[in-house]
Amino acid sequence: MSQTDFDILVIGGGPGGYVAALRAAQLGLSVAVVEAQHLGGICLNWGCIPTKALLRASEINHLLHDLEPYGFKAENVSFDFAKVVARSRAVSKQLASGVAHLLKKAKVPVFNGYGKLAGLTADKKRKVSVTAKEGATTTLTAQHVILATGARARTLPGLEPDGNLIWSYREALVPETLPKRLLVIGSGAIGTEFASFYRNMGSEVTLVEVAPRVLPVEDEDISALAKKSFEKQGIKVLTSAKIGSLQKAGQTVTVPVEVAGKQQNITVDTVISAVGIVGNTENLGLENTKVVVERTHIVTDALCRTGEPGVYAIGDLAGAPWLAHKASHEAVMCVEAIAGKKVHPLDPTKIPGCTYCRPQVASVGLTESKARDAGYKVRVGKFPLVANGKALAMGETDGLIKTVFDEVTGELLGAHMIGAEVTEMIQGYVIARNGELTEAELAETVFPHPTISESMHEAVLAAYDGALHF
Amino acid sequence: MSQTDFDILVIGGGPGGYVAALRAAQLGLSVAVVEAQHLGGICLNWGCIPTKALLRASEINHLLHDLEPYGFKAENVSFDFAKVVARSRAVSKQLASGVAHLLKKAKVPVFNGYGKLAGLTADKKRKVSVTAKEGATTTLTAQHVILATGARARTLPGLEPDGNLIWSYREALVPETLPKRLLVIGSGAIGTEFASFYRNMGSEVTLVEVAPRVLPVEDEDISALAKKSFEKQGIKVLTSAKIGSLQKAGQTVTVPVEVAGKQQNITVDTVISAVGIVGNTENLGLENTKVVVERTHIVTDALCRTGEPGVYAIGDLAGAPWLAHKASHEAVMCVEAIAGKKVHPLDPTKIPGCTYCRPQVASVGLTESKARDAGYKVRVGKFPLVANGKALAMGETDGLIKTVFDEVTGELLGAHMIGAEVTEMIQGYVIARNGELTEAELAETVFPHPTISESMHEAVLAAYDGALHF
Repeated sequence: MSQTDFDILVIGGGPGGYVAALRAAQLGLSVAVVEAQHLGGICLNWGCIPTKALLRASEINHLLHDLEPYGFKAENVSFDFAKVVARSRAVSKQLASGVAHLLKKAKVPVFNGYGKLAGLTADKKRKVSVTAKEGATTTLTAQHVILATGARARTLPGLEPDGNLIWSYREALVPETLPKRLLVIGSGAIGTEFASFYRNMGSEVTLVEVAPRVLPVEDEDISALAKKSFEKQGIKVLTSAKIGSLQKAGQTVTVPVEVAGKQQNITVDTVISAVGIVGNTENLGLENTKVVVERTHIVTDALCRTGEPGVYAIGDLAGAPWLAHKASHEAVMCVEAIAGKKVHPLDPTKIPGCTYCRPQVASVGLTESKARDAGYKVRVGKFPLVANGKALAMGETDGLIKTVFDEVTGELLGAHMIGAEVTEMIQGYVIARNGELTEAELAETVFPHPTISESMHEAVLAAYDGALHF
Repeated sequence: MSQTDFDILVIGGGPGGYVAALRAAQLGLSVAVVEAQHLGGICLNWGCIPTKALLRASEINHLLHDLEPYGFKAENVSFDFAKVVARSRAVSKQLASGVAHLLKKAKVPVFNGYGKLAGLTADKKRKVSVTAKEGATTTLTAQHVILATGARARTLPGLEPDGNLIWSYREALVPETLPKRLLVIGSGAIGTEFASFYRNMGSEVTLVEVAPRVLPVEDEDISALAKKSFEKQGIKVLTSAKIGSLQKAGQTVTVPVEVAGKQQNITVDTVISAVGIVGNTENLGLENTKVVVERTHIVTDALCRTGEPGVYAIGDLAGAPWLAHKASHEAVMCVEAIAGKKVHPLDPTKIPGCTYCRPQVASVGLTESKARDAGYKVRVGKFPLVANGKALAMGETDGLIKTVFDEVTGELLGAHMIGAEVTEMIQGYVIARNGELTEAELAETVFPHPTISESMHEAVLAAYDGALHF
């Protein structure tokens, strides 16, 4: 008979859940994963990974229509849209089966079904019932239960995905045809990535944002440059925009949009709704526990503990930022704390965020205005990529690097980047913030030439009036 | 009459020279640059920058012939080779004129001519004679003279560039036609970059290296993976190879190559010689000074001071590593020391090196074997890019990240990378080395998902048996 009692049970097999299981196994704890749908969660199956594969295709399409400046020519450029989408699905599938392989190698059992807290055993162990899709229920027990069931797209009334005219990210990832006219509601990471993808594949795209600027969580300078760049690419951007009731007619949908008191009707073939995230807190058996849910997310302390002893929540389920790398770090921290190791709570201002629109956006820490609001006296450095040799050689000069330092201590409070490859570069600033390095240590660091990353150095020097190349 | 007396005179307008001048001007010192040929030096005009523009073209050509897996098609793909080269020259020209603009904005005069030390004035100032190409000589004076005349390609007897069959990097940067068959002698950064460029543009390429492995200064694992990848691309790689006397015949040249006692004759249209660098120490007026030259480079102390008081040497002229970012950091340090600021000498193990072959190579600090040779007990972590989600989504899975830690202190002794975008990523490890961060701080750093840079995190975890995704 197979094992049913564990040190740790993890409900949910996404980046938080499977990493928790892998780390627990490394530390010699007995652990199992309960997953109803697919290992890898939204991230691998319907998020981070398949979007990156699609965006790679859209970058290729963009380049194929911009060959002339580089001295190249090609005729009858075309793409097989089904194949583009199929490649994205294949990448997801490969990685998800990679997760299954990693868990198998680590000897972590995976129970297929919906996991639910089901009270305590006589000797005070946690019971978890697992209900398979076919309906059969088994009961597992564990000392500790980590909830990691993630989140899903928020749906607004009248904007419910209908599988035809109105899409969430799910439908947007597996389109059968390229919409001629597309309207994207919400200009956060998900909205701008889809706007970039579809625009670069050839759709007419309108991006609508209720806030006064796109990518509203980013620094204002970054939002401004992103908007300018999106518009240069032919995306119609409407900010401070209110959406009225959608009117569907046959194969089109008309969206009333109000900006600064002026109403316009935009008729498109497809609407993508990207208006936020809600946690998957339902059917977890929380009702007879001390687990607290606030605004669809489970409330936890700095070590991912819920109000109920022995029950933890990590990742999207435990609230913003809804990022896979936040989930996996919480997973490691939570498991190490259970194992009795000394851990440091995650500091949200040390968690980078990346958006893979074109140009890419990446940031960590406080924006300039948030730093000022928090009472800091700041020094700000900016360096535009148009002054960077490598960016020029690559033909990718749209971009800006911005640093925000505490004038008193020299601490790097925040760093904000827009431009080519910035998602691969931001880790340098994260390492600096994590190591509590100051402007002096960053100024002394030798950044290699010729790289776009030299602009990270210049943006540090610029904050102290020492930029060399601008 | 224009100014002829300065606090600092800089001889040479490359990355070392012009940065020294810009930094001096920022610090309120009076400074001028003496430059005979072109501002920006080899780096901007005949090195780092134009090669990157060419390599961008070769990456595009590679992609255009590998569209199918991404779902794209194009017919009659072609390039205008003259236009590819012209773009590279235009990028160089734009950046070089950018340097002129920066110097002008900083009010730094530029004297066109060959600068030479010419003794002392009665009040012990340094005299520098400037001889214009037309022959007219003027004399300038300064308290301090910074020599920054750079270096040039080493030529071996029988391998002298002839402007036709045998090229140095100069000719290789401005080819009139694409060689059908090319042999590259030397597999350092310059040799492998040209091998990559010409191979990806369509040449048959043979890469010959006298050492037992390509990129001989890199970690052995990186060299091995680079060789494998080059061969996969169709480059013929010959290591531990000795070159005999070249035989020219009309428009071809035959190169005798001996490997492991076996002789073969390789006939090609073009040979690129990339066998090292010699410093430009000639005609600097060193003969009546205490400046010491050793193996074509000026000997300096940790603060770039030569044996002659008030005379400094920086950059390639002062020896390896021959890297523009080493030159510009020495420039800043040297000028700040002159200005009385407290400075830290450059530690060569904190200077990254980048090679822009395909896949790219980047590293900092000690290789595994050098660390062991230096007596360290090491912990080594490796993570292959084939296990990285972003690399898979991009279709760029050839690569490896390797870390070398001091087992006793946890210090990151070295980091070695091969793969897509690693030249933009290495700065993270450089920041870590410069900030003296340990494995614990790197392990706690949140690297964003999905990025190739996550592999940098995994390579740290791997050194301590904690890799999650491999």
